[in-house]
Amino acid sequence: MNIGDIVTAGASRLKPKDEVWKYKKYICRAKILDLTAGGKIVVLNEQEAHENDLYASHRVVLSCGKKQEVAIIDLSHDLVSRGEIMLFSEVLSEFDAKEGDQIEIMHMQRPASIEYIKKKMDGGELAEKEMDIVMTELMQNRLSEAELSSFITSMYIRGLTQDEVVGLTNSVVASGQTLQLGRSPICDKHCVGGVAGNRTTMVVVPIIAASGLYIPKTSSRSITSAAGTADTMETLCSVSLPIDDMREVVQKSKGCVVWGGALRLASADDKLIKIRNPLSLDPEGVMLASILAKKKSVGAEYVVIDIPIGRGVKLANQAEAKKLADQFISIGKRLGMKIEVLITDGSEPIGVGIGPALECADVISVLNNTGPTDLREKSCRLAGEILEMTGKVKKGSGFDTAESVLNSGKAIAKFQEIVELQGGKKGIKLSDVPVAKQRHIVVAEADGRVFHIDNRMLSKIARAAGAPNDKVAGVKLLCERGDKVRKGDPLFEIHSDSETKLDFAVKALEGWEGVELEKSVLSRVG
Amino acid sequence: MNIGDIVTAGASRLKPKDEVWKYKKYICRAKILDLTAGGKIVVLNEQEAHENDLYASHRVVLSCGKKQEVAIIDLSHDLVSRGEIMLFSEVLSEFDAKEGDQIEIMHMQRPASIEYIKKKMDGGELAEKEMDIVMTELMQNRLSEAELSSFITSMYIRGLTQDEVVGLTNSVVASGQTLQLGRSPICDKHCVGGVAGNRTTMVVVPIIAASGLYIPKTSSRSITSAAGTADTMETLCSVSLPIDDMREVVQKSKGCVVWGGALRLASADDKLIKIRNPLSLDPEGVMLASILAKKKSVGAEYVVIDIPIGRGVKLANQAEAKKLADQFISIGKRLGMKIEVLITDGSEPIGVGIGPALECADVISVLNNTGPTDLREKSCRLAGEILEMTGKVKKGSGFDTAESVLNSGKAIAKFQEIVELQGGKKGIKLSDVPVAKQRHIVVAEADGRVFHIDNRMLSKIARAAGAPNDKVAGVKLLCERGDKVRKGDPLFEIHSDSETKLDFAVKALEGWEGVELEKSVLSRVG
Repeated sequence: MNIGDIVTAGASRLKPKDEVWKYKKYICRAKILDLTAGGKIVVLNEQEAHENDLYASHRVVLSCGKKQEVAIIDLSHDLVSRGEIMLFSEVLSEFDAKEGDQIEIMHMQRPASIEYIKKKMDGGELAEKEMDIVMTELMQNRLSEAELSSFITSMYIRGLTQDEVVGLTNSVVASGQTLQLGRSPICDKHCVGGVAGNRTTMVVVPIIAASGLYIPKTSSRSITSAAGTADTMETLCSVSLPIDDMREVVQKSKGCVVWGGALRLASADDKLIKIRNPLSLDPEGVMLASILAKKKSVGAEYVVIDIPIGRGVKLANQAEAKKLADQFISIGKRLGMKIEVLITDGSEPIGVGIGPALECADVISVLNNTGPTDLREKSCRLAGEILEMTGKVKKGSGFDTAESVLNSGKAIAKFQEIVELQGGKKGIKLSDVPVAKQRHIVVAEADGRVFHIDNRMLSKIARAAGAPNDKVAGVKLLCERGDKVRKGDPLFEIHSDSETKLDFAVKALEGWEGVELEKSVLSRVG
Repeated sequence: MNIGDIVTAGASRLKPKDEVWKYKKYICRAKILDLTAGGKIVVLNEQEAHENDLYASHRVVLSCGKKQEVAIIDLSHDLVSRGEIMLFSEVLSEFDAKEGDQIEIMHMQRPASIEYIKKKMDGGELAEKEMDIVMTELMQNRLSEAELSSFITSMYIRGLTQDEVVGLTNSVVASGQTLQLGRSPICDKHCVGGVAGNRTTMVVVPIIAASGLYIPKTSSRSITSAAGTADTMETLCSVSLPIDDMREVVQKSKGCVVWGGALRLASADDKLIKIRNPLSLDPEGVMLASILAKKKSVGAEYVVIDIPIGRGVKLANQAEAKKLADQFISIGKRLGMKIEVLITDGSEPIGVGIGPALECADVISVLNNTGPTDLREKSCRLAGEILEMTGKVKKGSGFDTAESVLNSGKAIAKFQEIVELQGGKKGIKLSDVPVAKQRHIVVAEADGRVFHIDNRMLSKIARAAGAPNDKVAGVKLLCERGDKVRKGDPLFEIHSDSETKLDFAVKALEGWEGVELEKSVLSRVG
């Protein structure tokens, strides 16, 4: 759907005012400023804009040659003269405009989406066509942050019906590219986040691909955690592949681990997430659509989803997780995907490393059959589930098959193949993973037993030390839950590439208890 | 309440992360660009910002000398070098910064309001203290458009209790200046908008002031109509008075008609309106608080409110209007204001002029006892109500008293006094009102009877002709509802100061039927 279609779709709703403003347009010469303005922003001469009934933060449709873009206007009385328009890098990247080029400025019609946002706000149910228009206008930059925030808030308060989730998923898929692999069966996995060090993807993908099934895996970067799978894989090779390169990697090796953000798959979702972030709103229906759209856009037919529960992760108990799982399964069915869900214990980190390079080391150790048991077992459970779902192995033998692929060395070989195809070193091994020069060991302040290892606190410490931007930064656990420790025994080690950041992370420890020791006396009164 | 208090108030809710980011700050030299950025925006060097964990559209607290301001950051890799910060006019107007001055940049803590916005979203009731924190952070520019939009959306969907409206009103009053008049009794009036030409304020104020009561009236400018009272009064004199000048005018003449926007009364409301605008959301509780805060901030004790109903205005029927009136009265009582409400017929324009100068002419004609009867009668009803409420005259004689003030010439004399005190010409008269050079008469296309004169359509035509920016632009009615007209008879005249705009307005007529003639056959099928 393009701008023209939107105008047609919205035609019956156009107010007379809109019809008239269509006639109002004026032409300016481009003045170029290579500045990231944080959005599609142009600057117009204040007086000239007012004469054309345009005011600060109005949106306009710009035409340059045959290209059209929607932008938000800022005004200045001295930075641009009459007849000039200042363009910043976000608009320039869409237009091939040069200094002095003619840019036509038109009033933007009221977005058709406003009506549907209102409908949702008033408790109505949106049809797929209506969701489509909202997602299309979102992609065209026609909706302001305020309008989108209102839409998310309405979905949060009113909830989404199953029909709406299906509609939203299809709209989000349609908003971006899709991977046309031309092979089958296509498998996928997803973990509903929150668990530190949970890098099962990098173990599951080589097991599945080595077993002869396709798994074109896209992963995300970290938002608030110490590392996303994309950040971790990037320690070894490129993850920002264009879609044609991704297809080639998968056609050759049957698997890949790439960054979804580089692919423009399910593009509308990336924009929705940006709005959800400042408010930390995550309406369940939007979360479902967001995850399922990413699976659908790579053509997934079999999907296993890991829902961790427990202290500090999104879902607190079995009952909530079961409800969400049922939603995944029944909506997945309507979208043509077979989905199975594993509810897992997410109250503590998986593996011993937290941070890109440290998690990478855990992954390679597991693939070498030496690594942390928890990461190995969880990965084999997930891979086993996929093997059974697709009928590749019979019910009940998935886990064992996954383990035997690991034991045989086929998984590490497949991993090395994928890393190399994604531009990494040939025959990658543990000693290739970079290690931080700056380290600090945190010790027990008293005797006791390790009672809890906290996902959120350790992620914060790892971030304070520089993760995920600094690949080697993070936290390495030196104890396990249940360990008896004496005062002065090591609990974990903070890694960083800079002394300043290490100091900063150590300072941060005052408020953040990453490893809690059992205390028989909780507090003392009087 | 200042930024320090907010930090204290929010202290118990601070997450460890916030505590730590407090230590992170860096200092840059000011680089000045006198550009209206449409918000408090600064540009930082991209790489340097990232090293300090700051990303596009994050908010920061800037310190310059002893002043602090919250701003949103944009990033550039070439416009500013390391160690530089670019300031635009919105921030410059708060700081007295010069090129090269030191500006300290700090991470902004998560606004305390987020918790209350979430609470409202989840159906909770906000205490006055909580509303206060939201309004204070709003005024400090600590809340993003997305966050505010989410707040308005939540209030729209969840509604506000009467306690919340009282709390919100008090918070909005506290957010701005208040008029300390030191006189009594103080009266006020308000009209819930939507009726074209409804300039009763400019007639009521001189009647009330001439009767010996105080009426420090603040009015608004037009947002979507052809003229607000402030725009209309501005045809004759200044309306942008600082609060000390306003007080002086009222102490001398007992009345005034000034623009509320210039006064920083109920400041938070102006910010809320800006957010409501793009979505046209107007949650009832917010509307009530917005109106009542403006009355309370001038110290009003007696207020009459005009609620128009009918085709094309906000409220469609008596029942809705009655419900709103009851709300006004009972919330007013809790705020210490005696309120009475008149429900009026708002389906057609009042007076014959639509547009600043044309409405001014109607007002002066009424004050001269020659003007449009509908404007005269409505004004006397409103003024009469105030005279009775305050006990100035006995029940039932208000209207007659108001008429006799008009008849005696005291009202026009008072009006002239006020105009002069506000910087206008001495002894202002009808011939001083400017008249447009460009005019176009719209005639009946067929024989018929005038069936409906449309507020919204005529306002649109007046705006297309240049109102309210061009004072003389607008529409002058040449017929009344019920008139029998023949094809070619004049219906109304479009006024403009420019031929281009007049052409534009005439073109606009194609879609906009300002005056509808009765049609016995509505459509023909087959």
